[in-house]
This record gives sequence, structure tokens and C-alpha cells, in this order.
Amino acid sequence: MTVRASAPGKAILFGEHAVVYGKPAIAVAVDKRASVTIREGSNDHIQVKIPELNVYGVINTETGDVSQLNSEGEVDQKPGTTDVGIMKFIKSALSQTDLGSSLDHGLDITVNLEIPIGAGLGSSAAITIATLAAAARYKGQELSLENLAQMGHQVELEVQGAASPLDTTVSTLGGFLYFTRERGAVRIKPALEMPLVVGYTSQPGNTGILVEGVRKLRQAHPTIINPLLDVMEKLTNQARESITRGEEKQVGELMNINQGLLDALGVNTTELSRLVYHARRAGATGSKLTGAGGGGSIIAYCPGKTREVLEELESVENAFQVGISSKGVTW
Amino acid sequence: MTVRASAPGKAILFGEHAVVYGKPAIAVAVDKRASVTIREGSNDHIQVKIPELNVYGVINTETGDVSQLNSEGEVDQKPGTTDVGIMKFIKSALSQTDLGSSLDHGLDITVNLEIPIGAGLGSSAAITIATLAAAARYKGQELSLENLAQMGHQVELEVQGAASPLDTTVSTLGGFLYFTRERGAVRIKPALEMPLVVGYTSQPGNTGILVEGVRKLRQAHPTIINPLLDVMEKLTNQARESITRGEEKQVGELMNINQGLLDALGVNTTELSRLVYHARRAGATGSKLTGAGGGGSIIAYCPGKTREVLEELESVENAFQVGISSKGVTW
Repeated sequence: MTVRASAPGKAILFGEHAVVYGKPAIAVAVDKRASVTIREGSNDHIQVKIPELNVYGVINTETGDVSQLNSEGEVDQKPGTTDVGIMKFIKSALSQTDLGSSLDHGLDITVNLEIPIGAGLGSSAAITIATLAAAARYKGQELSLENLAQMGHQVELEVQGAASPLDTTVSTLGGFLYFTRERGAVRIKPALEMPLVVGYTSQPGNTGILVEGVRKLRQAHPTIINPLLDVMEKLTNQARESITRGEEKQVGELMNINQGLLDALGVNTTELSRLVYHARRAGATGSKLTGAGGGGSIIAYCPGKTREVLEELESVENAFQVGISSKGVTW
Repeated sequence: MTVRASAPGKAILFGEHAVVYGKPAIAVAVDKRASVTIREGSNDHIQVKIPELNVYGVINTETGDVSQLNSEGEVDQKPGTTDVGIMKFIKSALSQTDLGSSLDHGLDITVNLEIPIGAGLGSSAAITIATLAAAARYKGQELSLENLAQMGHQVELEVQGAASPLDTTVSTLGGFLYFTRERGAVRIKPALEMPLVVGYTSQPGNTGILVEGVRKLRQAHPTIINPLLDVMEKLTNQARESITRGEEKQVGELMNINQGLLDALGVNTTELSRLVYHARRAGATGSKLTGAGGGGSIIAYCPGKTREVLEELESVENAFQVGISSKGVTW
């Protein structure tokens, strides 16, 4: 039997980090996806291939250990941390659906990835959701979208420690979402186009470390960071209004303010800042880091200037245009 | 008769821009000064020389026109804006003290400048205060420090339009000051050393344009920018406590947060951001833009790392170490 599922990456437009403290965020699913194919295995192991990353791994179903194989199929003793990181999400997703241990045969799992890793574009959530959906399908299990998103969040919590359910929710539902931890996701109806360009640095950010850094800063300076998070909340709510009213200029200005507030939280870097300013110079109406920061990506909102911003960011680092995907998980 | 006066430049540690809206700021006088020497003129004109900038100008006492002369003493028809800008401060200061029009002879005025122009280090305030003090002395007029600071502020208002009285107050009083528009300056007693390195970009910032930009942003987004200014107030007050308690790490963290908030106000640039991050990488405990931004300078607080930060910033742009000067205007 072969099953396949896919789920989109996401870009946070407003409110990252603040969302950890119960504040709202606005995020979109993007038209870059992770696809997971599960087949009956050629041996007793669970083999995982991620061709785009040249990663080949084996999950030991008895011990739960993850080993990385090189392209000759030998165990690599010095695996890259990012790659093993991805394997952990897959392993945890399989264990959530109880797939690995309930079978009398191995599995061959192939992950196809259009989303860059560690770029703040929700690659781990997309892989997690697609793996969960494919695994449930393999078992013939019915899962509601709500269940799927919840299980995805559990996987992220298990692997990363701290995590917001935002990524897994967007990856599951798709579209343009206003999100709070308490009330979950609400769809936004934008009254404007959202031409977005992503610029990403070669350095991935570590979400766990960055979330912890903000927690420590808030602990050291509660009288400053708490009202700052309140400002972020107001900003995200204002942005929601501007998006539904089609106020392009306002949306851009609010992104720029949000970028400064993220810098104040200590999650900006010189590379991200450079991309942010280059995008504005090339005509972006607004630009900011997206996701956890500390590396990873910026997102530029560039009505009428997509080509100019794309060319400018490509001259500095890596960049690509993203569209908003109304499709969430499919299987 | 020859009279001479000098006044220090300043560096704002916390609260720039917020100070325009009645919030507090913390500033120090630095050990870089402007000195003004006034002599009876060799002809009927008021001649002004600023050797460090290669600027030679004439103020027409009847029309008030300012012409710039080249080094051969001919009127330059295409003067640089910055240089004529400086002449305007001198002209306005002379007119405040009523010196130019009350004499039956011309004046030779020499300005010696240790402070880079347009770098956010208060060069115009230092020149203004030193000119006012020297002119008053030339007339045999007694001026209190309070009067001098007030007249200096009038000059800045006349030349720049919007201006905070902070620069002229620091330039007059010297030392380590906590400043609000309403209550003026209060001396702070720091319980720590303040080893500072200034990094400055080759692009000067235009204070008037930057202050106007913040005003417009606040007008467009009052529900976001007003509470943001409140956060800046809390931050500056917290910084004052940390400085008087000798909490080095806190002071640095607060500078870093302040930098992000200034970025949110739209007064940061890619060049400033680069210097800010390079300083932190080289070991600065905190770093931020200082003054109006949009170009100009950053200031890095680097206990135990002055040499490292200085070398790092020099490898990127211009940098120098500054000490805090307890001396205000002298004459």
C-alpha cells in the first residue's frame, strides 16, 4: 500500500513571539509544501528519505533511536543537527499515530520538501502534519482537522520543548488566519492582494533558543517587555483591520513597526536586518523577519514591486516569491 | 579683543525621539568639544572659519545672508548644505545676543571642531552654545547657564524648526543627565564606569526630517505609537535606576531594547543596524543608534571590551572612543 499526504509551509505576517504569551498572530499558508509518501518497507526498519536534503535515515522501532545513513546506506556517525532534527519530528509523528509499533513490517517513508529548513517557514510543522496525515491514512484511521492540528502541536512540543500551535494549525487549515492560543484560528478575508517575497539567510534560527531568550528578557525586564507585548497585540489587531479593509500602506507600515519590536525582543540579526532594509529600498511597502528570527527569513510585502524586491534580495542572499495557499493538508 | 568659549558634544544613551513627546531621556556630555574664538574683524564683515571642515563663510550683517567662501576667499555659488547649515546656527546665535548688529566693526570668528557633523553627537548644539557664550563675553554680557541653554534652544528652533532642548542643555551643563522637557535636567550619579565607543556612518541624518517622520507615524498609528512611547519612558526610567545601581548587564540590555524601539519608529538604517550588531558581536554589553538616526552614529557600551569594539567598528566604518565630560560650557 502507498499513501501520500502533503501540507503547506507558513509565513507569519504579524505577532510571532508575542503569540507565545497569548497575543494574536496573523499567518498565511504558502504555496510551498512538504509531501510525505509511506509504503510498505523493503525490510523491517522504518527508512526515511528526504532527497532534497540528501538525508537517508533509519528509525529503530524497538529503541526509538534515529540513525542517519549516508547515500551508500551506511550509518553516519556524525549527523548534522538539523537533519536529525527533522527525523525527530517524523519519529514523534509516527509514534503519535502509533504506526511504527503496530505493524509487522517496515516502512519506506519519502519526504519531498519545497520549503527551506530552519527558515522560519514552518518546514517542521508541514512535515509533521503531512506525516501524521499519511500515517493515519496508512492505518485507515479517520482524523478531524482539529485532531490533526492538535497532534501536530504535541509533536512539536515533544521535539522542541516550547512551541506555539500556530504553525501546525496553519499547515493543517491553509489560508489566511488570525490566531490566538486561547481561541485558535479564525479565517481573515483580505481585501487586498498579498504579493510576498521571502528572503532567507544561510543561517537557520533555533526556535527553542530564541523563545527561551525572549522568556529570559521578559523575566529580567517585565515592566518593559510586558507592555511591549501589549503593543504587539494592538499592532496585530490593527493589521487585521487594515488587511480586511485593503489598506496597503498601513499594512506595510505595521510590518515595519513589528520588525522593530522584534528587534527589541532580541531575535533580529544583522543579516535579517540587511535583507529587511534592502527590501524596503527596492520598493517593498513593508518588510520584517518572519518566524522565530535569529537567522531564517524575512518577508517583504511588495505590491507592484515583486520583481524589483526579488532581484534585490537575490543579489544579497537567497529569495523567492511565495503565493498564499488556500489549501491546507491534503491526503 | 579676543574671547573664546567651548562646549561639549553629547551622546544620548536612552530616550531620543520619545523626548519630543515629553518622555525622559538620559544623555551624557562627551569629551569632544566645539571651541569658538571671536576677534575684532580685519574688515566690516563677519567672517567665519571652520578649519576642520575647510569652511570659510561671510555673514552679511545688513541682509543676514550667509555666503560660503572657498579657500581663496571667493564666494562659492554651490555651497554644501551641511556647511551652510552650520553657518545658520552661528548666524542665529549672533543675532540672539544681538552682537553682529551692535558693532561698528566686523568680526573674525573661528570654530574648532572635534565633533563629527551630522553624527547625532550634538555638534550644532555645541557650536551654538560656544558661539552664544563667546558672543556674550565679547559684549561683556553676563549670562546664567539657564539663560544660555534657553537661548541655545531658541537658536536650534529657529534653524531646525522642531528641536528638543536636550542637546543644548547637555552642552551647557556637561555631565550625566536625566532630562524631561517639563522639568529640565537632573544630574545622575552613575555607580558604574561608562566606557563608550561611537561608530558613525558616512551619511549624516537630518534631524528635522526624522522628527517629522516619527510625528507622521504617530499620527497614522496613534494606538500603537503612543503606548510604544510609554514603553520608552519606562525603559529610560529603568535605565536610570540601573545606572545608579551599577547594573552593567541591565544597562546593556536596555540599550538593546531601546534600539529595537527606535527601529520601530522608523529612524534606523541598514548601516546603523550593521554597526549595532557588529558592536555586540565584538563584545559590547549594549549598543544602539544615538541621536535622531537616519544615518549618524551608534553608541556601544563596552565594559572590558573597548579595544575589541573599537577595532571591530573601525573595520566597518568610522569609530572613536568617547569619555564622559563633567565640563559643560567653559569661557
